[in-house]
Amino acid sequence: MQSFELLSRKFALHFEKSHFPATPASLYEPNNYFLGLGGKRVRPVLCLMGNELFDEIRNDAWELADAIELFHNFTLIHDDIMDKAPLRRGMETVHTRYGESTALLAGDVMLVKAYEYLSKIEGDFLHPILMLFNQTAREVCEGQQMDMDFEKQERVTLDEYLRMIELKTSVLLAGSLKMGAILGGAGERNQNLLYEFGRKLGIAFQVQDDYLDAFGDPAKFGKQVGGDILANKKTFLLIHALETATGTAADELGRLLATNEADKVEQVLAIYRACKVDEWALELKNKYLDEAFQHLDDIAVLSKRKEPLTALARFLVQREY
Amino acid sequence: MQSFELLSRKFALHFEKSHFPATPASLYEPNNYFLGLGGKRVRPVLCLMGNELFDEIRNDAWELADAIELFHNFTLIHDDIMDKAPLRRGMETVHTRYGESTALLAGDVMLVKAYEYLSKIEGDFLHPILMLFNQTAREVCEGQQMDMDFEKQERVTLDEYLRMIELKTSVLLAGSLKMGAILGGAGERNQNLLYEFGRKLGIAFQVQDDYLDAFGDPAKFGKQVGGDILANKKTFLLIHALETATGTAADELGRLLATNEADKVEQVLAIYRACKVDEWALELKNKYLDEAFQHLDDIAVLSKRKEPLTALARFLVQREY
Repeated sequence: MQSFELLSRKFALHFEKSHFPATPASLYEPNNYFLGLGGKRVRPVLCLMGNELFDEIRNDAWELADAIELFHNFTLIHDDIMDKAPLRRGMETVHTRYGESTALLAGDVMLVKAYEYLSKIEGDFLHPILMLFNQTAREVCEGQQMDMDFEKQERVTLDEYLRMIELKTSVLLAGSLKMGAILGGAGERNQNLLYEFGRKLGIAFQVQDDYLDAFGDPAKFGKQVGGDILANKKTFLLIHALETATGTAADELGRLLATNEADKVEQVLAIYRACKVDEWALELKNKYLDEAFQHLDDIAVLSKRKEPLTALARFLVQREY
Repeated sequence: MQSFELLSRKFALHFEKSHFPATPASLYEPNNYFLGLGGKRVRPVLCLMGNELFDEIRNDAWELADAIELFHNFTLIHDDIMDKAPLRRGMETVHTRYGESTALLAGDVMLVKAYEYLSKIEGDFLHPILMLFNQTAREVCEGQQMDMDFEKQERVTLDEYLRMIELKTSVLLAGSLKMGAILGGAGERNQNLLYEFGRKLGIAFQVQDDYLDAFGDPAKFGKQVGGDILANKKTFLLIHALETATGTAADELGRLLATNEADKVEQVLAIYRACKVDEWALELKNKYLDEAFQHLDDIAVLSKRKEPLTALARFLVQREY
């Protein structure tokens, strides 16, 4: 059983190759540029870990991992166009650097290339993995559409937000694990437990992400603290505050959403604290994390095999920064 | 053996179903709108004909045909964004009607849905068809990128233009036929002959399209005659004229490209005629058509089975409008 860190290093080495032909360079150079920006490669490594939870890592698992990482990068290139994001990881996004048309097409061909890697899966495993990959890909698109829709809606319920996060973020983490489990020869029950572990871990991670944006330690948190508040972004925190605040707090929150005062972040945080949104968020995170671990516990393999996934989950969700 | 017309009617009936879930409607309504604009559905029917050339049409050939038609529509939605086209088939394009972000995502999910249909292919056929589908999809993206690159280049050689047309247009026609042939149980040699038939038919069709834009009968041609000339579009005709015109004709053509005089179309056509570009184009079309038919002849099945494809090729390429 290999740790996330070890498998990450192995995957980084494996992934460092030419994924595209040389020509037309105008199409493939943008893809190489974007892949060169790096990333944590969490999803492909989850796939490898999902395989190794049940059996030795198969050769074609590495190509499945490539497919998953390319799919993820395809979504990032297109999301950046839709979000009109100028930067990613501190560098120019593809559309900023090469124009929107090329970025659109570079994303398309990145997705096709993902399916080319997928087609390397051998034997009877190709069909179930292709089905799950397709379902996951469609759900991720649905999540992105919901996210865009929410920006135009005045109110979003907690259930709607949860569903969006599930589709946009969780299903790819869950699907990566399950696709690995399929290659590892896991039975259906174990596959589904691992999927649920990933799905709930993803939600816990997003609750934490929303929490840290408001309450994180600025010295440890990579982004500007309060960025979500300044952007009126509908997060777990804002949605819960809007659903629970009453009286003066509710009026005040409504007023703050319509302004951009210098101390808007501090004022909104004060309301969050008064409504105990911070405590609620930590409880919500722990609820999903506990449920995730319960699913992992229920998987019928020796608990020793689960250690790398347990360690990764604790690292991802209980981090302070 | 069924004619193109009969199979077209059958496919139209088969394709008239709900391809997408109901929600999120903001994502899927644009896809339903675009599919509702119709189209000749040439590519899926080519797939069915490729199957029937060798054997009875299998049930999963209809889903492969769905995949091909959805892939084609995905390319149209994204191409329209890149080309900033306001209309298609006289109706608003998806990005005009729903915005660019939604059009981008609607195209993405259309491609994923194509792969969902593809995954319905049974048994050992899935792997080779997925490989060919992926290769074709990647090549179509490459062709679109070359087409965009050409707009910015001052000169394009005939070979470069041919390669672009091959990628952007021909390989999907050829691939549709070959995927059908694979399902029909054709041997590799027959598969490849059918592919070459489709590839060369596609080039002949494009030569004709370029020819008709300049020399077509305005009463029969659906589009404005001379549109390519007004847009300085690099076509078979312009590229050949630039490669062969000398002396005054060459100077005059260069001058006309830099202007938009009222009688630009007439003047360019006069140069085309003086350089015999019209005769050259008809000869080029016939050369590719003859080669296409030679490949069809060489396929080892009873010639009676080839009649629907022969009739379709004659209809597509020898039409006057």
